[in-house]
Amino acid sequence: MRLYDGGRAPNPRRVRIFLSEKGISVPIAPVDLGTMEHKSPGYTAVNPLQRVPALQLDDGTVLTESIAICRYFEALQPEPALFGRTPLEIALIEMWQRRIELHLLGAIQHVFRHLHPGMKEHEVPQIPAWGEVNKPRVLEFLGILDRELGKRRFAAGDSFSVADITGLVALDFMRAAKLDRPAEFTHVGRWHVELAARPSARA
Amino acid sequence: MRLYDGGRAPNPRRVRIFLSEKGISVPIAPVDLGTMEHKSPGYTAVNPLQRVPALQLDDGTVLTESIAICRYFEALQPEPALFGRTPLEIALIEMWQRRIELHLLGAIQHVFRHLHPGMKEHEVPQIPAWGEVNKPRVLEFLGILDRELGKRRFAAGDSFSVADITGLVALDFMRAAKLDRPAEFTHVGRWHVELAARPSARA
Repeated sequence: MRLYDGGRAPNPRRVRIFLSEKGISVPIAPVDLGTMEHKSPGYTAVNPLQRVPALQLDDGTVLTESIAICRYFEALQPEPALFGRTPLEIALIEMWQRRIELHLLGAIQHVFRHLHPGMKEHEVPQIPAWGEVNKPRVLEFLGILDRELGKRRFAAGDSFSVADITGLVALDFMRAAKLDRPAEFTHVGRWHVELAARPSARA
Repeated sequence: MRLYDGGRAPNPRRVRIFLSEKGISVPIAPVDLGTMEHKSPGYTAVNPLQRVPALQLDDGTVLTESIAICRYFEALQPEPALFGRTPLEIALIEMWQRRIELHLLGAIQHVFRHLHPGMKEHEVPQIPAWGEVNKPRVLEFLGILDRELGKRRFAAGDSFSVADITGLVALDFMRAAKLDRPAEFTHVGRWHVELAARPSARA
């Protein structure tokens, strides 16, 4: 088994944090996004969608999509449960994981990919107007999330879950997208401090 | 329990097809997207993100996100399994569900929302250049999917899964986005015929 990793990019980091929380160690094969290695013929043979991360199993099967890779390890090693146990927990974690992924991480990625000068060769063509549209959406969702985090410790309930991993990665990725997180979102701020203090945050 | 539904929109349809495949019946509360009922104060109180579908449980808990709602019912009633059983099945279904959602349904939705004149009041502001960028992406992913469907019956393996539901809904939604599906994608065509013939497709 080997994990094709992409360094500082947000999706590979989600998987590394997940593995760290599970206490699972997987051999890493670095893919250099800076030199476009993910678009090379070699890596395209691994993942035709030319994205990281990808998990290659010993029989050659390749799994992509961060959350699919995480679910694979959750099924192999259920504890600690990061996708929930009861039907309601499972649904609430999936809901918040997806909301945070779509409305926070996804929106931040659109800002980054369509406005950052360094992404000109990666996002072709850049549509700056689309990047701009996503800026207020990030703030709008942070407001919704802040109200929720005033009611409970973690994104989807009282236990740490994969939804928090996506949240931490998203908040940290705001810097790359040159987005400030307003101090008025005090519950989001408290949550970020707690997540960033977990050993897994360094993964 | 009640399901807030949005008629012809793709996400509510995903949940209706899923419930039909499971043989589960849930009372429906229609939400009229044409008159912007999803933005009304009443519905905003149900789902602050102003989207359909939403599932309200008897204790008042509201679940949103189509796939989270589907997972709730999968956990309540595991058979027929639409999210997989073994770790590898679970991961492959999640991978294909997400790939089809992101690169097919998602791209089609961007084309529809940013280019269709009828969406001017729903997608503010429309960014036509962003809609245009997504057109070739739809075709590119259909090519990848076509090669995969040359190797197996369904999107994620030999069994019908939630990934096929997202696929059927996406292909049918191409018409609303004024996108033609090229006849050269014969495996996709064969797959669509089979999915559309299932009784659940009428849900």
